[in-house]
Amino acid sequence: MNNSQLKQLLDSYRQRFEDKLHFFLPLSSTIPSRLHEAMRYSSVDAGKRIRPFLVYATGKALDVPIEQLDYPAVAIELIHNYSLVHDDMPAMDDDELRRGKPTCHLHYDEATALLVGDALQSQAFEVLSSAGNIAAEKLVKIIHLLAVASGSKGMAGGQAIDLDSVGERLNFSSLQQMHELKTGALIRASVKMATVLADNTKIKVDDYQNKLENYAKCLGLAFQIQDDVLDIESDTQTLGKPQGSDQAHNKPTYPSLIGLEESKNMAKKMVADALDNIKEFDHHADPLRWLAEYVVQRNY
Amino acid sequence: MNNSQLKQLLDSYRQRFEDKLHFFLPLSSTIPSRLHEAMRYSSVDAGKRIRPFLVYATGKALDVPIEQLDYPAVAIELIHNYSLVHDDMPAMDDDELRRGKPTCHLHYDEATALLVGDALQSQAFEVLSSAGNIAAEKLVKIIHLLAVASGSKGMAGGQAIDLDSVGERLNFSSLQQMHELKTGALIRASVKMATVLADNTKIKVDDYQNKLENYAKCLGLAFQIQDDVLDIESDTQTLGKPQGSDQAHNKPTYPSLIGLEESKNMAKKMVADALDNIKEFDHHADPLRWLAEYVVQRNY
Repeated sequence: MNNSQLKQLLDSYRQRFEDKLHFFLPLSSTIPSRLHEAMRYSSVDAGKRIRPFLVYATGKALDVPIEQLDYPAVAIELIHNYSLVHDDMPAMDDDELRRGKPTCHLHYDEATALLVGDALQSQAFEVLSSAGNIAAEKLVKIIHLLAVASGSKGMAGGQAIDLDSVGERLNFSSLQQMHELKTGALIRASVKMATVLADNTKIKVDDYQNKLENYAKCLGLAFQIQDDVLDIESDTQTLGKPQGSDQAHNKPTYPSLIGLEESKNMAKKMVADALDNIKEFDHHADPLRWLAEYVVQRNY
Repeated sequence: MNNSQLKQLLDSYRQRFEDKLHFFLPLSSTIPSRLHEAMRYSSVDAGKRIRPFLVYATGKALDVPIEQLDYPAVAIELIHNYSLVHDDMPAMDDDELRRGKPTCHLHYDEATALLVGDALQSQAFEVLSSAGNIAAEKLVKIIHLLAVASGSKGMAGGQAIDLDSVGERLNFSSLQQMHELKTGALIRASVKMATVLADNTKIKVDDYQNKLENYAKCLGLAFQIQDDVLDIESDTQTLGKPQGSDQAHNKPTYPSLIGLEESKNMAKKMVADALDNIKEFDHHADPLRWLAEYVVQRNY
């Protein structure tokens, strides 16, 4: 795939995803309007959409019909968005800015933000369980993957470890474990959900599930390290959220533990490992390759 | 079924349910321990378990294998429990007492309570999607029912309407609509999830799905009216939560709208309607009949 083809493909994914997200969220005119408006405020037309891209890109690599990928793509972004809304609340990070806008609890109120997060999570499972074009057995597996990745042994568990570790000096492996849950679980689930949809009789790469899972694991770590780096090196306007927030919250980060330069090297190493894991895939995996590079090249 | 047989059956449901709930919740010794401990603090060995009873009782009336009912029974109670944890938080009702114990955010902290609610919701969908003894097509339907009943067009939506209506004088039909979502949605879902599991070639009551759904609708309203009545007539120790809380929060209730006596009459009328809807069912529906009576006779 040449660069212009790849760019066109990625643009089409983004457009498709935004359309589907609009479609799957309740209209603001539907009662309770304020809640539905706030759910849209916190989800639509914003965000890098890394997780949906991963779903579409993995599906492309495995020749999955795109119509099936829409459901896990929307569902996982809804889960990610709910977690941002709750994370920003005063009881957690108490942040004022998200994706360049006032956070949900500031634009609305705390009670609404609480309900927005709760309802976005339910919406994710509603969307997945409405996928009439996916075989029920596969759908149950996908729902299970998303539920586990979201819950106390996944993302929410990672946030709990993060809370417990504020002000403490985590060692490297504890920091790694925290991030493997907090951001890694959803990133791995994006790839795994799309993998479930593949017809494994047609795929010519041996042990492709494991290879893609390793790709996702490396990508997740690279993503988190780059997040920590950007928190130091970028600025609030570019980030769309407060720069220096980790340090302000006294959070353990890769740079605080191994230094800024070593963190950047580690992120690059992780990207190389991610790419190595998918080297046997053909050009349909080019979007996955692009994503791996993007994760450390992004500036927000 | 005579009274002693019925009592024995209901006791066996309770014991079975508590065992399953223990089984399906992560152990407190599993990392993150504090989160898992708090999830258990907010769920196990407490509560009337009305929704699980409804699942088991509906399943009994329709001859569904009890091993299949465990999954929706546990899942719906997890959703109910998450909603209580979030409802009690300072941003919502700011309550101090729940089931006779300090609320989750007081016993732990607000951030933990937020994550407990989030993780209990994920756990509900994890439990459902792990039901290997239920056909995948039925499981997807059940997951969809639970997701819709929990989200912005169900329970969370009812809470949003409740929030918006504090201090306002709702009319009767708006109050009804709010409760049909806030408490009614999960009560109806309990019955509907069990109904999905029935083998409809074997059931001799015409149009049984509709009849059971109407039963659930009446029961839900009776339940809510009795809740409002108890908030006036009971005491904090019996309730296990603060008596007079509705008035203190200036919440619209049935007694505030139609008076205490009229509310009690209406609850009785709803119970009679509920029973009327299941009159064609045989003695296997006796637990459903008992539940209808219990809902207005309970004192907490």
